[in-house]
Amino acid sequence: MTQQMPPNNHAAQRDSIATADIDYVVGIDIGATNLRLALADLTGAIAAKWSSSTAGVRNAEAVVELIRGGVENLLQQVSAPPHTLKAVAAGAPGITDVDAGIVIATSYLMGWRNVPLRMLLEQALNAPAIVDNDVNLAAVGESWAGAAQGVSDFVFLAIGTGVGASIVLNGSPFRGTTWAAGEIGYMLVPDTADDAVDHGEPGALESLIGGEGIKEQWQTLWSAKKTSLPKDLTATQIFDHAHAGDALAQAILQRTARILSRAIYNVTLVLNCPLFVLGGGVGVHPGLLRATQAMLEQLKMRSQPKLTLSDLGTDAQLMGALRLALDLAGSRSATFVNQEAVKK
Amino acid sequence: MTQQMPPNNHAAQRDSIATADIDYVVGIDIGATNLRLALADLTGAIAAKWSSSTAGVRNAEAVVELIRGGVENLLQQVSAPPHTLKAVAAGAPGITDVDAGIVIATSYLMGWRNVPLRMLLEQALNAPAIVDNDVNLAAVGESWAGAAQGVSDFVFLAIGTGVGASIVLNGSPFRGTTWAAGEIGYMLVPDTADDAVDHGEPGALESLIGGEGIKEQWQTLWSAKKTSLPKDLTATQIFDHAHAGDALAQAILQRTARILSRAIYNVTLVLNCPLFVLGGGVGVHPGLLRATQAMLEQLKMRSQPKLTLSDLGTDAQLMGALRLALDLAGSRSATFVNQEAVKK
Repeated sequence: MTQQMPPNNHAAQRDSIATADIDYVVGIDIGATNLRLALADLTGAIAAKWSSSTAGVRNAEAVVELIRGGVENLLQQVSAPPHTLKAVAAGAPGITDVDAGIVIATSYLMGWRNVPLRMLLEQALNAPAIVDNDVNLAAVGESWAGAAQGVSDFVFLAIGTGVGASIVLNGSPFRGTTWAAGEIGYMLVPDTADDAVDHGEPGALESLIGGEGIKEQWQTLWSAKKTSLPKDLTATQIFDHAHAGDALAQAILQRTARILSRAIYNVTLVLNCPLFVLGGGVGVHPGLLRATQAMLEQLKMRSQPKLTLSDLGTDAQLMGALRLALDLAGSRSATFVNQEAVKK
Repeated sequence: MTQQMPPNNHAAQRDSIATADIDYVVGIDIGATNLRLALADLTGAIAAKWSSSTAGVRNAEAVVELIRGGVENLLQQVSAPPHTLKAVAAGAPGITDVDAGIVIATSYLMGWRNVPLRMLLEQALNAPAIVDNDVNLAAVGESWAGAAQGVSDFVFLAIGTGVGASIVLNGSPFRGTTWAAGEIGYMLVPDTADDAVDHGEPGALESLIGGEGIKEQWQTLWSAKKTSLPKDLTATQIFDHAHAGDALAQAILQRTARILSRAIYNVTLVLNCPLFVLGGGVGVHPGLLRATQAMLEQLKMRSQPKLTLSDLGTDAQLMGALRLALDLAGSRSATFVNQEAVKK
């Protein structure tokens, strides 16, 4: 019967079958403690989310296997067949060669070296993939849907366990010659050690104002005489207590803000950029923003940049990953190399 | 008789009259002690040079009057009528709004504030003008005809009395939001004061590694017991004596190199750029380059930038000015606003 239908009807039938399936992209945020995935249609509307702990999972192949399961789960949540997945984008916590799709080096937390993450993802997911540094993705997220909308030049400054920045110029992250632009966790300012540290160890700046550095400083200065607070507090808890009036916590906050303001000052001298978006678990604390802003004002800059908190918070990287996946779905040939994986 | 010639011959005659005059551009280097001009034809070949002391001349109008006389002299040197001057470009030692043609602020040496230098030049010279920061012009010069040919991303680092940088990205100086990118003379590194200084005074970094800072350090540490050298030496002389083996001079050189290496390290963390070109009267000393390179190596960078000396030396700014003037002569309408001055 079908064979006898006129050719035009064949075509119409095929079109109707093709449009019956909605196409999707997946954004992937690979963190040191959590793996987070979001599925969106091609308008960017998020249809499903999935997450998993990565505690104890360090090996790249194991992480990719977790991702494969997560993507399968996401597609099941929306009852979509595998071929509707048009692109994925993943952010990894480390220096990433976006052109080659290789994570060159992650921090001491993950320990990855030259992981061909794009290829691994494309093979596991049968879809084109793009990989990038997580801080760059967070900057893309804030630029697309957060605190930096409409700003072409800004710095996204992530302060969590580590400290790093994405330098956005003319609307895109500036990568540097060896994909290492924005590695300001190693910056040397008056209060840091004068000598640089080995790569793979916390940088001079992040060892002071990263989450662990702040905790350590608290524990070093802590005594029952100085504060009624416990010796074991996170950076964010310390900043909360500073706001509540604890003098020792205030001293730690001031010290962190002072060092951070020097780093922001130095970056501004180089780039003269109008906006810093503070993100990361420690960086989004409003008390830190206020104290840092006050320190910057004392530095009498020719044109002081605006400091603002991340709008997207912990979703910044995931949103940036979705944005890149959407771009990739729209112009696949420009960046997708593993054609074989798609043809399967 | 002429009226009776066929139209084609008329055209040929007009062409021959038009090409009889060679067109020229002038590059202008406004320094704190010297004013230097170069005249080139539109192929970039330099046809004449002129210079004058600017000792005691601080007022912008007086500087422009000096320039007017210099340009007149240059055109006389090549027996060219005034209308053959097609464009000029001038570099001033200060933050310059290239779009508006205004020198926003020069260092404490000149004391200019919001000087409409482009307009002044166009009125004085009856030719379209472009003005830019002198360090940016030096970078353009090195990129065109010097040590950075073929390199799209690099930093030109000028160390003279002051310290400043031009951040060249994708082949052009990156300006920043308020034209102040590259003002690294104010950078805070472990050996500088922790607090920033007022603008209009030497910055924290330049007060240590600028020519005056190096001299001061020498005079502070100098004693007849420590060295047989005189107490009054320039930075360059001190570095020469370091090479010749004087221990105190070596200590000063090492200290300068150490601080400079920290500044270069910090800029590299931000930009991950492959090349620094060292220029300026103090910056071109080979001993400083060698010592700074050695210090940088100890900092174990992920990818250490190459340091190289300016090829063009004191001509870098002048060559950059010529390059911009040539660009302006080729695409006048894009940047020239003072049409009235040309029509005169």
